[in-house]
Amino acid sequence: MRIALDVMGGDLAPKINLEGALSAKAEFPSDVQIVLVGSKTAIEQGLQELGVAIDSFEIVHAEEVIGMGEHPTKAISQKQNSSIVVGYKLLATKGVDVLCSAGNTGAMLVGAMFSIKPIEGIIRPGIAGFIPQTSGKYSILLDVGANADVKPEVLNQFAEMGSLYANYLFGTKNAKVGLVSVGEEEEKGNLVTQAAHQLIKNNKSVNFVGNLEGRDILTDKADVIICDGFTGNVILKMAESLYTIFAERDYVTPFTSLFNWKNVGGSPILGVNGNVVIGHGSSDGIAIKNMLHLAKQLVDSDITSKIQKAYS
Amino acid sequence: MRIALDVMGGDLAPKINLEGALSAKAEFPSDVQIVLVGSKTAIEQGLQELGVAIDSFEIVHAEEVIGMGEHPTKAISQKQNSSIVVGYKLLATKGVDVLCSAGNTGAMLVGAMFSIKPIEGIIRPGIAGFIPQTSGKYSILLDVGANADVKPEVLNQFAEMGSLYANYLFGTKNAKVGLVSVGEEEEKGNLVTQAAHQLIKNNKSVNFVGNLEGRDILTDKADVIICDGFTGNVILKMAESLYTIFAERDYVTPFTSLFNWKNVGGSPILGVNGNVVIGHGSSDGIAIKNMLHLAKQLVDSDITSKIQKAYS
Repeated sequence: MRIALDVMGGDLAPKINLEGALSAKAEFPSDVQIVLVGSKTAIEQGLQELGVAIDSFEIVHAEEVIGMGEHPTKAISQKQNSSIVVGYKLLATKGVDVLCSAGNTGAMLVGAMFSIKPIEGIIRPGIAGFIPQTSGKYSILLDVGANADVKPEVLNQFAEMGSLYANYLFGTKNAKVGLVSVGEEEEKGNLVTQAAHQLIKNNKSVNFVGNLEGRDILTDKADVIICDGFTGNVILKMAESLYTIFAERDYVTPFTSLFNWKNVGGSPILGVNGNVVIGHGSSDGIAIKNMLHLAKQLVDSDITSKIQKAYS
Repeated sequence: MRIALDVMGGDLAPKINLEGALSAKAEFPSDVQIVLVGSKTAIEQGLQELGVAIDSFEIVHAEEVIGMGEHPTKAISQKQNSSIVVGYKLLATKGVDVLCSAGNTGAMLVGAMFSIKPIEGIIRPGIAGFIPQTSGKYSILLDVGANADVKPEVLNQFAEMGSLYANYLFGTKNAKVGLVSVGEEEEKGNLVTQAAHQLIKNNKSVNFVGNLEGRDILTDKADVIICDGFTGNVILKMAESLYTIFAERDYVTPFTSLFNWKNVGGSPILGVNGNVVIGHGSSDGIAIKNMLHLAKQLVDSDITSKIQKAYS
């Protein structure tokens, strides 16, 4: 397996990306290779500073960097030699099995749409987040930001893609899928949610447990929690803030640690022709390491092929 | 001041409503009267069981009860002798200064629209929730469920009404107003939020601090947090669930207790011609007592007149 890491992505790049790559390499089986994408000079210098031989990793040079604040579409089309675009070229040509980056989220999303493209039949890809549950596991929250406005049909596809992913992650054939709304009854919710409820309820490939209220989001009511990317982004970021809030109060437990996004590492894009993980801009070495583990797991899950087959 | 309490509203009515009324009466100044609305027989029997003289409270008889699961519009039009409709008649005729109920939320909302009606110029009234902040205070979250789908103009009015209410509550003239979105930049968000951002930014009666992300909702970025009723409902109920989640882990602190909805007591409707507080269906005596305190505070704030003046 070959995992491409955008070494230039994130607020603390390239140093922490290299640290994370080094930690992950030590934990990975020998048949998992990390391919570092970015400025060859910066990478070699960084590795030397870490006291690591520069031939420890395969390096793919990329001259340019897309900044965190750049306009995604503009940056992707103008910076063809950026680490993100070069990374996507590797992914599109099967040079690597998965691409991960803690860089500009929008650029990562636009890059996926332009290079590997959405799977045929998928209206809109979504970004999957991991939301802690009281049982100690994570549920999948989809979408967490790719689509602020959605059609009901898009939510129905999120339910399908989320099920496929959750079935692998949780070793089940029957992952429970819930729809975020404002009441249990199917007529509750905004117009999009009400229509989506009917589609998902009648979707035989989904084990639909019905609407979830805000109070059900952290309490193991569903393995897959479906909503538009606006609501999902607000939910995920609010949950993430809890770790800091409670850590500042010296309350750190295995449960509160689930809310620490550094332990999750990133969010996969579901519904594109390739494996992609987007990390947090403020990732540190631990977050990068966990992003690489998540990337490996995404390849192991074979989720991209499964979605392609489901829509073929 | 006269506060009407729907004694028949809520899952544990009428017993806990009477307990709550009794506790509040003991704490209120003598010029604050609680008017009990509901079945005279049930109220008198309940008071006797509590060992309280039946003339301790003014009782306004209402023969019928609107159940928690009844269809709001149908129930309000068909049950003219229900405690909610009788309560609204009292409010509309100025027989009381405020109405509160832990009964059917939808019926309370429809009752307000039919009897006291929206303030002229208000497109849609909203329900104000109270969301804990790390500083130990609450911010106002508006809307928490009256309007699952909104127009940008409605969010702009929420910003205005929320400011007026927050200025009273926090003793300021310049309450900070934030708009829930998925990024700080004004072009981030769903279409409604992007348009609302421009309206609120250019609204001179609002001290707009810009977009709030999920991570900013609990961290004192704003005194008034504006969003559609779908997002707000999810945020509020998710926050409320945290109290139970942490209490089950024996972690109860002054901060986590802010998340206990029983300490808040209820949610005022803003934008109608009268003071109304909606309580939680599963309220206990403490929650009812706190709902009555909130009702008193709502009258003290004179918020209804202030909104009426602002739109006259």
